[in-house]
Amino acid sequence: MPVIDLNADLGEGFGRWELGDDDAMLDVVTSANVACGFHAGDPRSLANTLHAAGTRSVVVGAHPAYRDLAGFGRRYVDASPAELRADVIYQIGALQALARASDTAVRYVKPHGALYNTIAHDRAHAGAVVDAVADLDLDLPVLGPAGSVFLELARDAGLRVYAEAFADRTYTPDGRLVSRREPGSLLHDPEEVAARMVRLVHTGTLQAVDGSVIALEADSICVHGDSPGAVGTARAVRRALEAAGIDVRPFVTGPGIS
Amino acid sequence: MPVIDLNADLGEGFGRWELGDDDAMLDVVTSANVACGFHAGDPRSLANTLHAAGTRSVVVGAHPAYRDLAGFGRRYVDASPAELRADVIYQIGALQALARASDTAVRYVKPHGALYNTIAHDRAHAGAVVDAVADLDLDLPVLGPAGSVFLELARDAGLRVYAEAFADRTYTPDGRLVSRREPGSLLHDPEEVAARMVRLVHTGTLQAVDGSVIALEADSICVHGDSPGAVGTARAVRRALEAAGIDVRPFVTGPGIS
Amino acid sequence: MPVIDLNADLGEGFGRWELGDDDAMLDVVTSANVACGFHAGDPRSLANTLHAAGTRSVVVGAHPAYRDLAGFGRRYVDASPAELRADVIYQIGALQALARASDTAVRYVKPHGALYNTIAHDRAHAGAVVDAVADLDLDLPVLGPAGSVFLELARDAGLRVYAEAFADRTYTPDGRLVSRREPGSLLHDPEEVAARMVRLVHTGTLQAVDGSVIALEADSICVHGDSPGAVGTARAVRRALEAAGIDVRPFVTGPGIS
Amino acid sequence: MPVIDLNADLGEGFGRWELGDDDAMLDVVTSANVACGFHAGDPRSLANTLHAAGTRSVVVGAHPAYRDLAGFGRRYVDASPAELRADVIYQIGALQALARASDTAVRYVKPHGALYNTIAHDRAHAGAVVDAVADLDLDLPVLGPAGSVFLELARDAGLRVYAEAFADRTYTPDGRLVSRREPGSLLHDPEEVAARMVRLVHTGTLQAVDGSVIALEADSICVHGDSPGAVGTARAVRRALEAAGIDVRPFVTGPGIS
Repeated sequence: MPVIDLNADLGEGFGRWELGDDDAMLDVVTSANVACGFHAGDPRSLANTLHAAGTRSVVVGAHPAYRDLAGFGRRYVDASPAELRADVIYQIGALQALARASDTAVRYVKPHGALYNTIAHDRAHAGAVVDAVADLDLDLPVLGPAGSVFLELARDAGLRVYAEAFADRTYTPDGRLVSRREPGSLLHDPEEVAARMVRLVHTGTLQAVDGSVIALEADSICVHGDSPGAVGTARAVRRALEAAGIDVRPFVTGPGIS
Repeated sequence: MPVIDLNADLGEGFGRWELGDDDAMLDVVTSANVACGFHAGDPRSLANTLHAAGTRSVVVGAHPAYRDLAGFGRRYVDASPAELRADVIYQIGALQALARASDTAVRYVKPHGALYNTIAHDRAHAGAVVDAVADLDLDLPVLGPAGSVFLELARDAGLRVYAEAFADRTYTPDGRLVSRREPGSLLHDPEEVAARMVRLVHTGTLQAVDGSVIALEADSICVHGDSPGAVGTARAVRRALEAAGIDVRPFVTGPGIS
Repeated sequence: MPVIDLNADLGEGFGRWELGDDDAMLDVVTSANVACGFHAGDPRSLANTLHAAGTRSVVVGAHPAYRDLAGFGRRYVDASPAELRADVIYQIGALQALARASDTAVRYVKPHGALYNTIAHDRAHAGAVVDAVADLDLDLPVLGPAGSVFLELARDAGLRVYAEAFADRTYTPDGRLVSRREPGSLLHDPEEVAARMVRLVHTGTLQAVDGSVIALEADSICVHGDSPGAVGTARAVRRALEAAGIDVRPFVTGPGIS
Repeated sequence: MPVIDLNADLGEGFGRWELGDDDAMLDVVTSANVACGFHAGDPRSLANTLHAAGTRSVVVGAHPAYRDLAGFGRRYVDASPAELRADVIYQIGALQALARASDTAVRYVKPHGALYNTIAHDRAHAGAVVDAVADLDLDLPVLGPAGSVFLELARDAGLRVYAEAFADRTYTPDGRLVSRREPGSLLHDPEEVAARMVRLVHTGTLQAVDGSVIALEADSICVHGDSPGAVGTARAVRRALEAAGIDVRPFVTGPGIS
């Protein structure tokens, strides 16, 4: 029976500001990337999200970012590797403690936003994030894009690595995400998104933005939590996967990519 | 042989800004209260301070504060207990991870600044801090002022509690610190400070600001790290204690107050 | 013809996070209290709100707060008067520049949240805010609650002062707001709210929470911008006022209270 | 009689943290680039620095930066031009108000740190800063490096532009600063620094790092305020300039470069 994980970014409000519907998404996903306070997430609301994840047995991952509340972690920050390494350790540890106090635990790390994009190719920042995780706990796996420098360095450091695909994003013929700044980067039809993901799990392939067919390794599918219709799309994906006989369960129980 | 601990607040720079001489103080104290990022302490410099503490076998404590970088945590913030509890868990966890990655560990908690002063008497905020520590790890002891609501609630929650005295501060006849806003709250003569501390360890008493003699329970003596002459005073205190046959060693190995 | 102003708090998102529907509210109110970055409001979105206010000829006021993004300025911060005075000047100036670059101007000051509540009675913080405004521009009037220490000190300093009532809040028999922590502090029926405000403008009186009738001076009515139904309630109030023959126009063109 | 200005970055503490000796530097320089809160500078200490500048008739400039307290504005942040433009307006306005309340005024703009370096060549960020200044006040001149994209776009926008040289930095043969990350980027001998600056004013030339002679346009000389020996070097430069018959006075009274 084929298996796949569904993950979403959660805990992304801050104080008075809410973003997305964490409770509804936690009923759909099997893994939750929870913000750590640097791009979003005040401790009290993180504690609430962690508690909600724990009561649903959703696996929790840390979702560290550049220190950039005003830009929601979507802006590259030219931090030194030493700064970045320490910033990532700080964020993971903060979330670990909130998780522990909420009777759950951080079981993987997936970087956020501009950091995620940067470490797909930048060896200095990718290495800093890998060092952070490895220095903290070699048993903490990482989630990222297949073929990235990040996963390569993480594997070299002895970490378990898992790959993810994005449900509602389009890909270039060489397997990269089409930039959000380009037209056609986002898919909006829940049924189309769901059908693509079923195909991905069954065949390991997707249709790229130019119509060609590409192979894409994925232990998990990322569904977005904060766009309008996010919950509906996520539900459509889950429903389609299950209807196609796919077992939706946490990726951390799987072997990961090698 | 009488024993006492010496503690100081360290890691209190932020990015470009330094404060005090952590390396010099770490050669004098046996316990280091390390900032956690909310009143001071960027992750990279915290990692450096933690590493320096670890290599000297100085015991590390978490020094959480109200979220107030601009006020250095010296301003009361009317946080809700739920906010404060989560903020404290977040800070302790962040420091725990940085400590782990620096091959050391957080072995106690001592709140900072306005939070320290508030929880001496305010049951809501004291309870929030106690809940934070107890929910995170019942084996993590706390350090605070003898007779405080904080230590009372911590003991009730099953935490080990330790009391401290301030080397260079004066006390009222009922055993409270004279407010920094009052004249005569600070002692400046290193030899006088040192002699008071020797007397405190030997007799459990101090001369209050009005000349009367008061009893004061103390497992540790706090020496300040950031004032001019701080290192000199700390050295004078340590020298005098040792000359008087007092064993200066980490308080966490002792039984604490009951 | 009786006149009244309608004001609302706007510009209260931050970066990725939005709050309320500024464009819709700007079609209803005559004065906009625009956040200044300390409790909410990143500069770019503030510029957008200011531009939108300017194109509709809505009068802009500065809405300074304690430095407390995480608490949305709703938490008391024990700042020194010198800190608070400078913080308020900083915020007003920042908004003035954004307003100027958006072809509008800051024409009054109304403090936000915990600062608003504190300076109703606290002379030190009220004095600091008054000093800030007076030192910056004696021609900048202030808006606050009638009978407050803030308006008293502002008048003494030579500032023009204006009073406001809250459309959807209830009042105690002595003319104070019922605390949000008490039941019955908020009114939810738009028509009831609207009727109360018509009565207030026509008679200068309101029914207090205990059923007694109180006198309340008001140059402006504050409608909330961020609660569910906020726009609907604001529209209901404006419609009712106009239907009752009341001229809804900016308070800054009026004489204020004396 | 040849003329030159001396400028330094001031107001760069934050809350509890001090940096450099503003009072001593204000006795030496004729122009002060004052931080605006995004890389350094809490409002109260900025007010003090502005007051100190005003009483000495030192000309005040705004010193805006990327939003990056933790990195002291020395890290590139990939802000959008719209964000950056609004951030710069916000910062200038905040400082203008603090200056007004301290009986002085902001009379020019000089960007800080990574922003300064970026806009030397990056047209998007340079244009955003120029738009900010031009939209705010076309009478506000800018200070930057000769030959930079920033000064080019500023001139095109109708702003008066002034060029500066760095007293204790070395230059490449094509007139750029040697990066701080390279050896030999900094000069440490006050007398050598002073002699170079006298030569620069008299001849318009400097010896580059490779020994070649380069021409460098400069209305002002930047002396650093925060390094050890900063005040001593600044005094040595001023003394040498005056001894060489050079009139040290604010650059804003001069015509600027064309």
